Amino acid sequence: MSAFRSIEWLESGAVRMLDQRRLPLETVYHEYGAAVAVADAIRAMVIRGAPAIGAAAAYGLALTAVHTAVSDVVSLRAELADSAERLRRSRPTAVNLFGAIDRVMARALDDALATVAALQTAVLDEARAIAAEDVQTNRQIGLNALPLIPDTATIIHHCNTGSLATVDYGTALGIIRTAHEQGKKVHVLVDETRPRLQGGRLTAWELQQQGIPFQVIADGASGHFMRRRGVDLCVVGADRVAANGDTANKIGTYNLAVVAHENKVPFYVAAPLTTIDFATQTGDEIEIEERPSREITHIRDCQITPDGAEAANPAFDVTPAGYITAIITEKGVAYPPFAESLARLRGE
Amino acid sequence: MSAFRSIEWLESGAVRMLDQRRLPLETVYHEYGAAVAVADAIRAMVIRGAPAIGAAAAYGLALTAVHTAVSDVVSLRAELADSAERLRRSRPTAVNLFGAIDRVMARALDDALATVAALQTAVLDEARAIAAEDVQTNRQIGLNALPLIPDTATIIHHCNTGSLATVDYGTALGIIRTAHEQGKKVHVLVDETRPRLQGGRLTAWELQQQGIPFQVIADGASGHFMRRRGVDLCVVGADRVAANGDTANKIGTYNLAVVAHENKVPFYVAAPLTTIDFATQTGDEIEIEERPSREITHIRDCQITPDGAEAANPAFDVTPAGYITAIITEKGVAYPPFAESLARLRGE
Repeated sequence: MSAFRSIEWLESGAVRMLDQRRLPLETVYHEYGAAVAVADAIRAMVIRGAPAIGAAAAYGLALTAVHTAVSDVVSLRAELADSAERLRRSRPTAVNLFGAIDRVMARALDDALATVAALQTAVLDEARAIAAEDVQTNRQIGLNALPLIPDTATIIHHCNTGSLATVDYGTALGIIRTAHEQGKKVHVLVDETRPRLQGGRLTAWELQQQGIPFQVIADGASGHFMRRRGVDLCVVGADRVAANGDTANKIGTYNLAVVAHENKVPFYVAAPLTTIDFATQTGDEIEIEERPSREITHIRDCQITPDGAEAANPAFDVTPAGYITAIITEKGVAYPPFAESLARLRGE
Repeated sequence: MSAFRSIEWLESGAVRMLDQRRLPLETVYHEYGAAVAVADAIRAMVIRGAPAIGAAAAYGLALTAVHTAVSDVVSLRAELADSAERLRRSRPTAVNLFGAIDRVMARALDDALATVAALQTAVLDEARAIAAEDVQTNRQIGLNALPLIPDTATIIHHCNTGSLATVDYGTALGIIRTAHEQGKKVHVLVDETRPRLQGGRLTAWELQQQGIPFQVIADGASGHFMRRRGVDLCVVGADRVAANGDTANKIGTYNLAVVAHENKVPFYVAAPLTTIDFATQTGDEIEIEERPSREITHIRDCQITPDGAEAANPAFDVTPAGYITAIITEKGVAYPPFAESLARLRGE
């Protein structure tokens, strides 16, 4: 387990999160006592990463349950529904957020839960289960990917998909970690991942803690390294995978996938089944969050662009399935055509 | 003409440069009185952009000539050769630097120059001619490109290629400026261009001054915009074009070219013939400058990565000719196969 946790439930009835905006230079934790505060934290990217924000939303609902002042289940369900709405509106792209909320709310609607105390326990248990399963899932993804990683591998990774992006262990970074722990000689080229620099700030930090060799690179340099140095594979996470395998992930992923394809470098998406959105048929339907221009015009408080310069800041892009070599899930590795292979894994 | 000059010769016998590291938030000029200081300024990127550093090197040699204490041409030629060596070592990739130095040195070797005074005048005149021709060349490039720009055009631009990158007017940015001045409705998506952010800092500044609409984007976002918004063309400059059209340019150019190719977006290289290196057959032979890691780990004084994090910082990449739709020079537009078309333009 990592020495740090992106998110934890405290027995006092609070949610504790590591502030990922302040990493790597400062390690700051916040505690939250209400769902609306958790929604704000998700929107502000105190916590980020699709599985992590799913767990955060689940815990946000647990806060509503645990701190309620009402004395009947109908009123508590109404409060939970209201919190669920606020949490759903925090960020639009990652399906895990909606999946976790839906799962907790489905549990809350169980007629067998006849008292507030029973409902509180059920909601908190469901949130804990979501968190625990995420860790288990991530470890399995790492094991399923192992045969795909050469004994000596130069790997390009984008954004952050590690213990910070999940409850623990990570997805794409979990694959890298598992390979390293199993004795493979991996070297990671870390896309710094503008604008929020989750690669340069967070992934570099995690790899450093795990003693895995890496170099941070500018996002635009990936193709150069593929041609001039040689890259064995790219591995990325996902925020939402459509039923056909089209994958929405941090902006810059699509560029990386196209360049990898052109250079015949395998391109893998690591995604728990909770990230696959079987209700969405193709990537064209996936909503791409637009975030504030300031993330482009400034880096922290350093202003980059001239006063008044305009910027455009889509936070995600969609990689069409045709550029993806395989999608690695906890149930196994899916190969094209993904509509069939993903559905088969889900069915198992 | 622009209100600012990247570089000027002052009659007092000094070279004045705008400090491009400080833009856009501060407009600071430096004056240089010796070639070695000019070489340092080129290396530190006080001035950057292939044509601009070519002019800087030529003026550096003029400083050596003008401030010499020797009284015979043989000694002055030796001093010039020494300065030329220092200037050649400032940065390895842009051919204009070497072309300008070679041109001034060839002029200096003219036996007809029998006195120090004559040699001083000749060297300074050659440097001035290099500078004046650059501006003329850039205007012509803009005119030659005009038929290629739709009346309404969304254009992706990389790095900075404007008045700051040249003596004035610019190459790829000059094309955009000409189109705008001729009444075309252009909108520029400005690759911010990590690590040095010449796009976000310098290109945004120049476009703002010229009243040309733009938005700064993260380098990794270009493909997303091509797919989701629609882009009419990409235009970039060049630091060195091989005889076969392979083009070395600011890191990130190759990624952009591959993504453009995949999306059937025309990809144009704007380059004066002084940027074509007919002695270099292919891009594989072009040396790619590696710059300090700090340009990746820090943005100005803001540290991004954890203490001790490693980074890799190639400053350029090579775009194979197959991804380039056309190379626009002052003598006309070259289409593939470039070995023939570029040679033909040179011959004219």
